[in-house]
Amino acid sequence: MPDPGLSPLQSSLPGAAASFTARVLADAAAHGIALPHLLAEAPDLPAAPHPEAPAGLPTGLAAGVPAGPLTGLAAADSVETPVEAPASSAAPAADAAAVAAPTRPDPGWVLRGPSGLGTAGLSLVPRAEPPAPRAAAVAAPADALIIPGLYWHPVPEPDPVRVEEVSLRIKSWALDEIQLYPEDWEGDFDGFHVGRYMVACHPDAPTIEHLMVAARLMVAENAVDDCYCEDLGGSPIGLGGRLLMAHTALDPLHSTAEYQPVWAESLHADAPRRSYRSAMEYFVRMATPSQADRFRHDMARLHLGYLAEAAWDETNHVPEVWEYLAMRQFNNFRPCPTITDTVGGYELPADLHAQPAMQRVLALAGNASTIVNDLYSYTKELASPGRHMNLPVVLSEKESLSEKDGYLKAVEVHNELMRDFEAASAELAAACPAPSVLRFLRGVAVWVDGNHYWHQTNTYRYSLPDFW
Amino acid sequence: MPDPGLSPLQSSLPGAAASFTARVLADAAAHGIALPHLLAEAPDLPAAPHPEAPAGLPTGLAAGVPAGPLTGLAAADSVETPVEAPASSAAPAADAAAVAAPTRPDPGWVLRGPSGLGTAGLSLVPRAEPPAPRAAAVAAPADALIIPGLYWHPVPEPDPVRVEEVSLRIKSWALDEIQLYPEDWEGDFDGFHVGRYMVACHPDAPTIEHLMVAARLMVAENAVDDCYCEDLGGSPIGLGGRLLMAHTALDPLHSTAEYQPVWAESLHADAPRRSYRSAMEYFVRMATPSQADRFRHDMARLHLGYLAEAAWDETNHVPEVWEYLAMRQFNNFRPCPTITDTVGGYELPADLHAQPAMQRVLALAGNASTIVNDLYSYTKELASPGRHMNLPVVLSEKESLSEKDGYLKAVEVHNELMRDFEAASAELAAACPAPSVLRFLRGVAVWVDGNHYWHQTNTYRYSLPDFW
Repeated sequence: MPDPGLSPLQSSLPGAAASFTARVLADAAAHGIALPHLLAEAPDLPAAPHPEAPAGLPTGLAAGVPAGPLTGLAAADSVETPVEAPASSAAPAADAAAVAAPTRPDPGWVLRGPSGLGTAGLSLVPRAEPPAPRAAAVAAPADALIIPGLYWHPVPEPDPVRVEEVSLRIKSWALDEIQLYPEDWEGDFDGFHVGRYMVACHPDAPTIEHLMVAARLMVAENAVDDCYCEDLGGSPIGLGGRLLMAHTALDPLHSTAEYQPVWAESLHADAPRRSYRSAMEYFVRMATPSQADRFRHDMARLHLGYLAEAAWDETNHVPEVWEYLAMRQFNNFRPCPTITDTVGGYELPADLHAQPAMQRVLALAGNASTIVNDLYSYTKELASPGRHMNLPVVLSEKESLSEKDGYLKAVEVHNELMRDFEAASAELAAACPAPSVLRFLRGVAVWVDGNHYWHQTNTYRYSLPDFW
Repeated sequence: MPDPGLSPLQSSLPGAAASFTARVLADAAAHGIALPHLLAEAPDLPAAPHPEAPAGLPTGLAAGVPAGPLTGLAAADSVETPVEAPASSAAPAADAAAVAAPTRPDPGWVLRGPSGLGTAGLSLVPRAEPPAPRAAAVAAPADALIIPGLYWHPVPEPDPVRVEEVSLRIKSWALDEIQLYPEDWEGDFDGFHVGRYMVACHPDAPTIEHLMVAARLMVAENAVDDCYCEDLGGSPIGLGGRLLMAHTALDPLHSTAEYQPVWAESLHADAPRRSYRSAMEYFVRMATPSQADRFRHDMARLHLGYLAEAAWDETNHVPEVWEYLAMRQFNNFRPCPTITDTVGGYELPADLHAQPAMQRVLALAGNASTIVNDLYSYTKELASPGRHMNLPVVLSEKESLSEKDGYLKAVEVHNELMRDFEAASAELAAACPAPSVLRFLRGVAVWVDGNHYWHQTNTYRYSLPDFW
């Protein structure tokens, strides 16, 4: 049987969408099914490959895709006025006031308001005329935590109606549907402010239910981390077994008739598994199979990261700085921004998600976001039992820096990751200006900013060291 | 900007290829680029959705895909004469002779010969007339290990020319390119017979270099397992850190200018990382980005499996049978069969790979193959230091069975997994008879059979218990 369309396609970015189309068409053509009106217009699809096209790519498809006119510029090109308070030794109160001042220029590309009802506000194209400042909507709240020298972008105040609705529904889910926590944990649950977090990170979610998909996964991920790894009963001992059993709530077992039901029952055995199982069930209903596969992969990465951290904890190993950064690329927020398209009600095609340039954007976005967590949770972690690794601590120990200088260098590392993320995102947007790519890149950038906003405003959980 | 093509598509199997095409076309149309002659013939693509089509799917595309006439039947339908020697208490030599007898009927669908040059022999369609028996090509060798009652399929003798060439090249890679092992490990390396293994598992590889991609990854995976986890210096202590650092050779770090070079240098620091780094470099050159992403995910699964096993080892935890089977779905051969398309020189599209039905096929194929390993390595593991978990041991301990009855029940578990794999594969082939799907399913089935063949004939590594 001739099989003309299945040659390997080492996709380049601009051609990825077109080459996938070509393969699907050829696949269908070879079987004589489907897409009849399209195939009727392309009778020569399997023949006469273009001399410059990859093997097996039909004539004209690769050549027909423009190399990418720079019309769809991305985040880094349109964020020329980010917030970066100067690192100084002046009184922290003064710096905080300066950064929170209502006169801060509006970056221009930030969403006008948390309407959450579409994509009109998500353009990556720079605006010719900056809109009139709406400082109240984009400045950090007066009591926000301000890290001098940190590079970040303000976000609009999350829609309070949505925040309230998500907060109510997520608590109902946690209490009634999955029996997540005993009564005395209620304060910490409320203090997590998951509603504000998710609404800030996903302003384009078309419905509350889309936000709930993200909210449930966020709560579930924290439940597993707290109960298996961290201070709510967690331990590095035996963690590999517990995490794998929990991972099967995301990536199901396929076993024999005798053992499959016992496994299914095990997913109800404790709060971490109950939360993973239920949150994933809701997610899979809304996601395409490729989006679900992408999420499972990111969660496998997360669990590998937990296990590396646990191994070091158990053996009292203080990693080199690069080792710590590698671990933190896995023990990382990445599963949260990569569902931005599912939560937004669209899909970044799998072949575009897999492109090395997109993988780099996601890794850098996750790394910058994760170091934000290290910076804001620094004092919380110092106060908790045992030694807790974070980037400032590792920098101080491995590079013989004072606590303050370790912290300040961690701020620099964050800023470089953030700028590299924005540069990589802009480059990808220019090279592959497909609408789904542009919207996805924008969604990741908005998630990064919303994540920073949540840390900065979560004074229930976080406080800053007194280094300035 | 209107964005008509990005609605969520909860793909069903028959429509997956068509729906992806529709999204790519709509994406391109919304941006006004690419595929001009196709779009010119489908001017109404973004409008008038079919009432039964998923939201956002253009008219006629979903409806135009037939539900799948049962023309492309899969493995289980065409393997009515598999080998299943009766479990008996007769002398093993007699059973072995019976199974290896040249009069065994040819299953008919097995490749005629290891030509390795195309897909003609890979048809899943049952043959009207079984070809003349070529028993010498498909029977197990006279000295093969025969497990009474095990359900398996014979394979043609791997092409000796290819076996020899892969054996020479893989040794050169191991010795000269990556300095894999000291001289005294040479016997074990040769005894692994990676050339025979890979040629048996990938008879459709178009070139030796395609086989080498699989061979390098196989050797690298074994190097990491042996040196980090098992008897060549491995230990459960600190394993999470070591495995994560090795995983970055597959899934690279994206860090700052100061730390990136130190990480890159670390990939040359030991044999496991050298082998992962080099094998992945070759693989990525041949694979599409989606194939590389798929492989990384499977390797993350594998490493999670190693870490669960290590955690149980460290804490002397004997898992329940279902827990062991769940761990073994991760600590699993899956990364090997899922590269069958890359090694075969084509691609199963990412959206089809992600379908739940395909994920089930892959999980079951991996699980059956992995229990094969438990059965053939049973005596080897009993003889090695410490207690080594495998399915017979866990069954005996948890279900109060004798060693023999634990082993025999493990054979039954394998057989059920194998039959479920074949049934799931046949069902998927019928539901989605796209050529890439049929060829991929065939490739996975051939890999499963080749893997069994390698275990059965590797008398350097394996021997059987005396239970019959």
